[in-house]
Amino acid sequence: MKVSVKTPATIANLGCGFDSFGLALPLYNVVSVEETVLPGSGIEINIINEKNNEDISDIPTDKNNIVYKAIELLYNFIGQIPNELKITIKTQIPISRGLGSSASVIVGGLIAANELLGRPADEKVLMSIATEIEGHPDNITPAFVGGINLSSWEEDGSVIYRKLPWNDEWKLMVCVPDYELNTEISRSVLPKEVPMKDAIFNLKRSAMFVDALYNKDEELLKLSLKDKLHQPYREKLVPGLAEIMNNLKHINGVVGTVLCGAGPSILVIYNGIGVSEIKETVTNTWNYFNVKSNFLNLPIEKEGAVIL
Amino acid sequence: MKVSVKTPATIANLGCGFDSFGLALPLYNVVSVEETVLPGSGIEINIINEKNNEDISDIPTDKNNIVYKAIELLYNFIGQIPNELKITIKTQIPISRGLGSSASVIVGGLIAANELLGRPADEKVLMSIATEIEGHPDNITPAFVGGINLSSWEEDGSVIYRKLPWNDEWKLMVCVPDYELNTEISRSVLPKEVPMKDAIFNLKRSAMFVDALYNKDEELLKLSLKDKLHQPYREKLVPGLAEIMNNLKHINGVVGTVLCGAGPSILVIYNGIGVSEIKETVTNTWNYFNVKSNFLNLPIEKEGAVIL
Repeated sequence: MKVSVKTPATIANLGCGFDSFGLALPLYNVVSVEETVLPGSGIEINIINEKNNEDISDIPTDKNNIVYKAIELLYNFIGQIPNELKITIKTQIPISRGLGSSASVIVGGLIAANELLGRPADEKVLMSIATEIEGHPDNITPAFVGGINLSSWEEDGSVIYRKLPWNDEWKLMVCVPDYELNTEISRSVLPKEVPMKDAIFNLKRSAMFVDALYNKDEELLKLSLKDKLHQPYREKLVPGLAEIMNNLKHINGVVGTVLCGAGPSILVIYNGIGVSEIKETVTNTWNYFNVKSNFLNLPIEKEGAVIL
Repeated sequence: MKVSVKTPATIANLGCGFDSFGLALPLYNVVSVEETVLPGSGIEINIINEKNNEDISDIPTDKNNIVYKAIELLYNFIGQIPNELKITIKTQIPISRGLGSSASVIVGGLIAANELLGRPADEKVLMSIATEIEGHPDNITPAFVGGINLSSWEEDGSVIYRKLPWNDEWKLMVCVPDYELNTEISRSVLPKEVPMKDAIFNLKRSAMFVDALYNKDEELLKLSLKDKLHQPYREKLVPGLAEIMNNLKHINGVVGTVLCGAGPSILVIYNGIGVSEIKETVTNTWNYFNVKSNFLNLPIEKEGAVIL
């Protein structure tokens, strides 16, 4: 028996909502999990890059693979260990670009393995396991359920999430640079302590963000998308980020510019106008830093993971 | 000519929303401002405590009075200075208890003086002046417009606020102790820097709080009312706070317990049941610390300041 699951790309943080907000994009990875017939054949992991332009040689294909690790935790949850498994990971989501490729395959692998085992775990358990592997739930919940979410990993290990409303008149332009940024490196530049006033700044803005979404309030959304907790520290790892954020401010139609997850992709939220100016500004600014850019003009993916 | 303005008490912070959330209560101060007929009579400030049980002898009745200071800024805004003014402040809101008595009189004085001057300033200007005197807008905006608000003092000096929805099935029990706590002292115990994880904790919860309000989601409200940014540091100034928060957790009906503003009053949000258990628990816990308690079982005041 073989189960394949398709899961969307995701963008976490969204400026103010560090480790808390995330949304899904219609760009997918597919994970297939198969019990191999031959006993003793062990764990086989294959990674197929369907874009053919990304270096996947660094991704472990042994028991250090995160998809395997997640599946192992699920087996442990029912008191078993995986013996013979063939895991196939087909990737279309750009890797190490802040687009949730790892969350996507973790969620895909877990749902596929859970199906294979006869659904011993419910969504709550699967989300907890996925978050334990990923470290935070902001990419995990939209990969599961789609849409734009607020999520929290509570002290008891459970994941709490709520879907937020989205005004489809607000469009997304994802600007993907031609280089990778390792999430761990991008997290290592963050301080352990932050000024109290910056903590207040962000808590205020994450409240504004939710209020803006419920009221389709563009003025408030614009104010809410600012951040003082992670983006300022990550500017040094993302050449051109500060300049792009600043240059896009002056373009009619731009609501806000934020880093995608830990970067290096940049998300521009705009109200339908200004597409060519946005692309031109990002292209020119990144050109100055010798970075080439690729643009994804995508809606929010309302659906989450799908069993194929 | 004499103008009198009635303004409500307010509770700021509400746990997670430090310096950001605030609500109005149906408990009022009245400020009257009068141009005195006699030139050269100067500034006269009278404070009348209508509860007759509070010590108001510390409140300045000269140009150091905050109501006068606010009115002076309004006069400055139109290029004038106040010469002859009689300001009468009638207080019913308990003083230095975290119930916004100072915000209330600042807002009342400003609106009254603005009327007297023929309304040279709009709400936006008055809110900015009031916030400049108060230091933060979370008590100011509900004193102005009533209800439960999210507010922000932006870098350009303007005050942004939005009214949030409230589920009237959630009731408020305000527990007022028999001692005062100076706001400045209560602010002085807060650290200048806080752990990043605590900043994330609160930003997540303030987003949850807004989402819970829009969806009348009691489970989420319960989770959202937690705080790691100010209440833990203020516990040492509010004997029994930690114990009351902990003891009330086990009472059926209690949604959450938070400090009112900078304290020392405590707000219990409950869903209609458990009133006598709440009062008994608070009374007994505070008794242990030799603190006597007074309870105000009040709805949210939906109206703000009113010109009488």
